[in-house]
Amino acid sequence: MLGILGGMGPAATADFFTKLVALTPAQCDQEHIPLLISCLPQTPDRTAAILGHGPSCLPALLAGLRRLTDGGAQAIAIPCNASHHWHAQLQAAVAAPILHIADAAIAALPPGDGTVMLMATRGTLASGFYQRKLSALGRRWQVPAADEQPAVDEVIAAIKRADLAGASAALQGLWTAFAGASIDAAVMACTEIPLAAQHLPAPPFAAIDTNLELARAAVTHAIAQGWNRTC
Amino acid sequence: MLGILGGMGPAATADFFTKLVALTPAQCDQEHIPLLISCLPQTPDRTAAILGHGPSCLPALLAGLRRLTDGGAQAIAIPCNASHHWHAQLQAAVAAPILHIADAAIAALPPGDGTVMLMATRGTLASGFYQRKLSALGRRWQVPAADEQPAVDEVIAAIKRADLAGASAALQGLWTAFAGASIDAAVMACTEIPLAAQHLPAPPFAAIDTNLELARAAVTHAIAQGWNRTC
Repeated sequence: MLGILGGMGPAATADFFTKLVALTPAQCDQEHIPLLISCLPQTPDRTAAILGHGPSCLPALLAGLRRLTDGGAQAIAIPCNASHHWHAQLQAAVAAPILHIADAAIAALPPGDGTVMLMATRGTLASGFYQRKLSALGRRWQVPAADEQPAVDEVIAAIKRADLAGASAALQGLWTAFAGASIDAAVMACTEIPLAAQHLPAPPFAAIDTNLELARAAVTHAIAQGWNRTC
Repeated sequence: MLGILGGMGPAATADFFTKLVALTPAQCDQEHIPLLISCLPQTPDRTAAILGHGPSCLPALLAGLRRLTDGGAQAIAIPCNASHHWHAQLQAAVAAPILHIADAAIAALPPGDGTVMLMATRGTLASGFYQRKLSALGRRWQVPAADEQPAVDEVIAAIKRADLAGASAALQGLWTAFAGASIDAAVMACTEIPLAAQHLPAPPFAAIDTNLELARAAVTHAIAQGWNRTC
């Protein structure tokens, strides 16, 4: 059984679940993947924790993780990029493998040596795990300019308050700015961003949906383990 | 914390989760409702069990229910109509209240004495709990004709195999037939049916989305219990 540590935020967790179901090859209910989903929106703010302005998320993440493994989860997916700041500590606490969202996202990048734009919360950017993984692979990356990051923050905050129009408008401005910046790809490295992107025309570069790529990795893992059955 | 006993089917559970998040008044993650979702698509076929053609669903439903209450769930929602055939046995097994999807759906019916069409699996219709609850309230109901029920079955089966076009075509035929039958409302008493209905024009009668109404009841219950918090 696959465990999903979610709630960060809840709309992104629901989107992850929807994508996972849609990606599963199944002709009947019984061919789908058994799941246990812990959706704990009360997990403290990830960016505040990473930047040292708020309480650590680790106790809440560990409590959710233990609820999943106690319930029988044998692998874990976390549809929240910033929470991967604590990936090593979480993995050390359980035997079940915790799929890494950045590995799934980076695997989906177009080949070549073009620049990758990282769109994420200030916490994820400060944590630096995307930058380290990309650099280790020899990929060039950049982060939004200081006057662009507030629009990234606004896309994310607007989705969390269910303001789809506000989120889409902020993202459209970023897509336009990035289109002039000679990038090959943008990684939507916060799982709220794809919820805004799905209502916009595709930008003229690869826009990597980290929630979709993690769902793809989770389905692949679950099918390899034989967790779904035949009708 | 709210527990969701799901997987019957998985797309309907994801739709329930999405509707529950959308219905929750929240300005930030922390104002959303904490959830634990057990999605067990391997639960035996409900209709086969109710009609006596297959194994009982009760052991699988009880196992999922215990996983939720062991994990801390203090109220339960089951986004599957047919599973409510076992509602009394499930409720007897746990202290946490199990919201009843038929009560939520019936509360959303338009007032008056018009006839209510019940669209459901053959298992739900054979179980009879909708008919009993409607009759107890003095509401007139009818079920699809013998030559219409195969189209209801097809809507449901098509959603379970991700054939949205097939599901929508079958449902459009039913909407047209029911429009000539002087009904006031149709209860989509299988949680797969609304996934097809959302891609069709609204029919000329109230079409009650049982998944949406259960989500509404769950949000109301959770907020009354104070399970969400302020930002």
